[in-house]
Parts: sequence; C-alpha cells; structure tokens
Amino acid sequence: MDNKFLIRTANENDVPAIFALIKELAEFEKLADQINTTENELRKTLFGEDRFVEILLAEFNGEIVGQALFFKNFSTFLGKPGIYLEDLYVKPEMRGKGIGKMLLDKIISIAKERNYGRVEWSVLDWNESAIDFYKKIGAKPLDDWTIFRLTSDKF
Amino acid sequence: MDNKFLIRTANENDVPAIFALIKELAEFEKLADQINTTENELRKTLFGEDRFVEILLAEFNGEIVGQALFFKNFSTFLGKPGIYLEDLYVKPEMRGKGIGKMLLDKIISIAKERNYGRVEWSVLDWNESAIDFYKKIGAKPLDDWTIFRLTSDKF
Repeated sequence: MDNKFLIRTANENDVPAIFALIKELAEFEKLADQINTTENELRKTLFGEDRFVEILLAEFNGEIVGQALFFKNFSTFLGKPGIYLEDLYVKPEMRGKGIGKMLLDKIISIAKERNYGRVEWSVLDWNESAIDFYKKIGAKPLDDWTIFRLTSDKF
Repeated sequence: MDNKFLIRTANENDVPAIFALIKELAEFEKLADQINTTENELRKTLFGEDRFVEILLAEFNGEIVGQALFFKNFSTFLGKPGIYLEDLYVKPEMRGKGIGKMLLDKIISIAKERNYGRVEWSVLDWNESAIDFYKKIGAKPLDDWTIFRLTSDKF
C-alpha cells in the first residue's frame, strides 16, 4: 500500500501548495526575483469568477509533490484550440520516478480527448535534462521562433 | 473624408475575411503548407459556444486590411492573466501607414484596462522588420527560452 501515486485536479484549498511549488520552480529556474504575486491574487485568478487555468497535482502517499498548470491557446493554422503548458514541476527529491511523465501524459490525453491541435510549452535553454525528456516524447523545438514580451511598465 | 482608418472587434460575418488574412500571413511566413483548417472549423472555434479568442480588425475606407487575434495567457510569476498575441497581420500594400502599431496599441490598452501582467507573442527570427518594430515599442526577446511543440500525431 506504499508508494501510491495519484494525479488529480486542484481545488481552491490547494492554493497554498500551488504557490509553494510555483516559488520552488522559480528558484530552480534562477528566476525567483521575478515572482510578484500573493496567495490571494493567485486564488482570485485561478479560482475566481473568470477562471481559465487548469491545474493538475501529483500526489505521493497523500503529499503534493508536483504540478502542471495549463490553459487553452489557439492556432490560426489549425483553426482550433491547443494546450499551453505554463508550468510543469516535480519536487527535486521526487524526480526520476516518472511523475513528470505522468503529468505530461495526462495533459496529452486531455488534448486528445478534446480534439485539440497541439500541446506547447517553453523551456530554458540550459535545462538539458528537460529538453532531453521533451525530445524523447516526440516534441520539437521551434528553433526559428523567438518569444517577445512587453512588460506592464511599458503599457 | 478619405483615408479613414478604423479598428473594430470582429463578428461572425467577418470569418471569410479573417480566414483570408490567416492564409496571407501563412504565405508571408512561408508556412502555407501548415494551414489545416476550414472556414467552418474556424467559425466554430472563434464564434461557437466556447469562444475565447478575441479579434481586432483594421479597416481602411471600409475594407479589412489587417487583423490581430489574441487570447488570455497566465503567468504563475505574476499570478495574473496576460495577453498572448497569436497573429498580427497587415496586408503588404497597406504597410508603413502605422496600422500594425494601431492594432498593437489597442491590444496594449486592453491589457492595461484589464490590469493584465504582460503581452507576449512570437516572431520568426528572419523577420527583421517586425523585430525592429517590436524592440522600438519596448518589447524584449526571451532569447534564453525555446518553445516546444507536440503535434497531434504524437498524442
């Protein structure tokens, strides 16, 4: 009865755990200085009236050890929605057990179920272990595209 | 009374014009072979029950000459939504008149109005005139990130 893995949908009570994992991922990405939100703001966006982000949590023996946050995107070329995976994170001490793969497989099966056109996400170029993992499942890097960002101080 | 520019929200009657501009952009991007949709599918996604894509059209003397398609994204670091600009297109013969800037300015003002965290989009690395334009308005390339895509044949 040990080693029980579970993937489930998050609910509002999970916000503190979700925020903790967001902060852990930011540390891992060496981007912790870019965190600029609070538990309350996060709760409002994720579980307020206008909710549009979906969250899967990975549990191991009842403890939350990883998460995936995603939302719909849209391809004009395919004329239909896809999934954009904003965060995929597994706690360092729980890696190598296939939890990231379980989360990603679940997302892919959701995309398939909904007849979506594709699944996309972004990865930091130095994160080689993630890149290897993504290539292994058949994902392709869009090497000839660059993301541009306009931050709110330029609005 | 000549040279009348107008930016307006698209409605269902605009679907043929929207699809035509999508195809023109694909030609310009040398990606026309990636178009895999129909007017009907597009209508269903853009104006069906589960609509989530917003579309601005640019008109010049009553004719549609450009468009911007966008939807909400989400930043875990900011804890709030942003805008992802999927397509920004102005017909070649109408460029250099500030129409792209008018569309982008409108999107930025929508992001500001809604208290969103940022505006993002992707650009092909060879599209230097677009890149210059984006840098001029204060957008920054996320040079250390790569987009990964899993196409539906891998689902």
